[in-house]
Amino acid sequence: MPLAGIRVVDLTRVLSGPFCSMLLGDLGADIVKVETPREGDTVRHQGAGRDGLSWYFANYNRNKRSITLNLRSDEGRDILARLIARADVLVDNFRPGVLDAMGFTEARLRELNAHLVRGSITGFGTTGPYRDRPSFDFIAQAMSGFMSVNGAADQPPMRSGPPVSDLIAGLYAALGIVAGLLREGRTGESAAASVSLTGGLTSFLGFMATDYLATGRLPKRTGNDHPIGAPYGLFRTADGEIAIAPAGEAMYQRLLRALGAEALRERPEFATNALRAENRAAINAEIEARTKCETSAHWIGVLNDAGVPCSPVMTLDEVFADPQVLDQQAVVTVEHPGHGQVSLLGSALHIDGAPLPVRRPAPDLGEHTVEVLGELGYSAEEIDHLRERGVC
Amino acid sequence: MPLAGIRVVDLTRVLSGPFCSMLLGDLGADIVKVETPREGDTVRHQGAGRDGLSWYFANYNRNKRSITLNLRSDEGRDILARLIARADVLVDNFRPGVLDAMGFTEARLRELNAHLVRGSITGFGTTGPYRDRPSFDFIAQAMSGFMSVNGAADQPPMRSGPPVSDLIAGLYAALGIVAGLLREGRTGESAAASVSLTGGLTSFLGFMATDYLATGRLPKRTGNDHPIGAPYGLFRTADGEIAIAPAGEAMYQRLLRALGAEALRERPEFATNALRAENRAAINAEIEARTKCETSAHWIGVLNDAGVPCSPVMTLDEVFADPQVLDQQAVVTVEHPGHGQVSLLGSALHIDGAPLPVRRPAPDLGEHTVEVLGELGYSAEEIDHLRERGVC
Repeated sequence: MPLAGIRVVDLTRVLSGPFCSMLLGDLGADIVKVETPREGDTVRHQGAGRDGLSWYFANYNRNKRSITLNLRSDEGRDILARLIARADVLVDNFRPGVLDAMGFTEARLRELNAHLVRGSITGFGTTGPYRDRPSFDFIAQAMSGFMSVNGAADQPPMRSGPPVSDLIAGLYAALGIVAGLLREGRTGESAAASVSLTGGLTSFLGFMATDYLATGRLPKRTGNDHPIGAPYGLFRTADGEIAIAPAGEAMYQRLLRALGAEALRERPEFATNALRAENRAAINAEIEARTKCETSAHWIGVLNDAGVPCSPVMTLDEVFADPQVLDQQAVVTVEHPGHGQVSLLGSALHIDGAPLPVRRPAPDLGEHTVEVLGELGYSAEEIDHLRERGVC
Repeated sequence: MPLAGIRVVDLTRVLSGPFCSMLLGDLGADIVKVETPREGDTVRHQGAGRDGLSWYFANYNRNKRSITLNLRSDEGRDILARLIARADVLVDNFRPGVLDAMGFTEARLRELNAHLVRGSITGFGTTGPYRDRPSFDFIAQAMSGFMSVNGAADQPPMRSGPPVSDLIAGLYAALGIVAGLLREGRTGESAAASVSLTGGLTSFLGFMATDYLATGRLPKRTGNDHPIGAPYGLFRTADGEIAIAPAGEAMYQRLLRALGAEALRERPEFATNALRAENRAAINAEIEARTKCETSAHWIGVLNDAGVPCSPVMTLDEVFADPQVLDQQAVVTVEHPGHGQVSLLGSALHIDGAPLPVRRPAPDLGEHTVEVLGELGYSAEEIDHLRERGVC
């Protein structure tokens, strides 16, 4: 495991931060998730589940240990300080200033642990006029420009269904933390990595941003059409529809051959990609006139054999039953004590040819309080007293 | 710079791979981008630009050096072998088997450099029934399940406007490579990180996947509505529309107070979130009846002050002129010799409180061939002869 032996103190909750610490845990780090006594991460009570276990929580909190600590109490904060002193990484997704208000300023953290690598996810950034505003995935989607370029041309701006800004920010933060660990290991210098939900998503605007920056022209929403290429998009078949994405002239020619539509080569209005994009409806109708005659499965086979990128639009039941998805272990089933077999999303990142394993199921709230406080040197009696006083 | 001194041999082209190596370059690594003589990365000729420079290329290839090598020639492959022998990282986004066919099998790579960390991005994975299929961002969006949960309820499945699968895969690959470097530094053991466009995006389905896995019920597309929360979404104002995302009962109550709509508390059909979700159209209409009376700017101020997450839906001109975006340096302008001032997306990842800098603009094709071959020990005469034979 690349991060074996790395100790992470994890103050995150909800999604972006827990995804970041999940990635670090998947890579082998020891994640100590710090939760509020009796409440815990709100995601424990969100999403569908079985036998009282949220599978949403189970997914994003595998490979972690949970301790409860009341950070509003002096004793709780003292314990956090001791955890930080022996950790390699501290990660949070509080609003800017929350950790400072608890007494964990940058100076204090440096004093506690000169080698600490910090990871922080905020809504808008740790500086700037909006730093104190509350945020959420939907807000980041609206503010980042993402919604303005997502959706159909004749429809309003559209948010992404999946919570992309949370997950992109989590992935960036994990990259920053591991890069910080690398520097710390080579130079002894600590590091602080931070990313915002909005900033992460703005960085994902791709050519839409660079084209805008170069020309000052606003990109349009184009739905499933390619902004400048045709044919491209969803095409009906005898029993459904398929996505076809021939990029470049050679692939277009291969597409025509595979469809038995070589006659279209003679049509002057389809002679170049620019002309086809101008006559998008007409070329798409010509393509669809052919695809409609056979099943999706037929075309998936024929077009892939011809080297033309294509696919069905898969719903989640099809995705999680697909032979390639199963081969890649994009879904894994683990035994959750008390909850039976629980299915989770597998690690998309493969190391040395295999996905990163789920070494331990998501923890019950405070499941490892005694174990972790024991590692800090607290005796069973001391822990009992802390618990009586509501500290843990 | 966290990756200062790390040498990356970069065989990637188009988007997912170049984004990965851009992230490594932003973090301080020395990226040697290997391109085909006279052709180069196709993105050099894509997207809008000025004075013959594609700003799309300029963005994703800053902080890199470019050398040309004809990898179809024995001599070209010999030079690549020498580059690999002294590198820390080799990254590619070829289809599976392409590197092997060039003679760079796993065994050969190990022989050349036992400490090499490999990063690889494929369409579907390096194993499995679809491994040899061609892919593209649009195909990955269709295959991953993403499109099935993106878009409006009464509209077809919708791809994301920005090329999310390419960028997510690039980010995962960068994380895997840096984690591999960390392990190599600590144990001397090399590592191979890989991710697929489809697998990366499937891992981003979030609670939609975990809810499906728990219940077997397919998630629905809900457009800008929250699947289980209301009010939530876009609301018209006197001069536009704003996104409002109150999560939880406390925020709903704050929203009512900020809108002067406390009377809605008495309405039994809006008493709980579940009832409001059932009567979504009615509660949204009540909220909009208030938001329509004032401007967007008015409500952005009032609602943020009340702690209710909200924002305008910003178009790219607004994004790149926004004071928070400017504070975060989400767009940066660099001097490109021969092309004047070029604007690029800034680094979303901040280290030690600042975005990672653009240390050098994107290279001309082969700009660093002489420099890099010189570092390998080739003399000016030898390089001239290689060039005459079309090797570089």
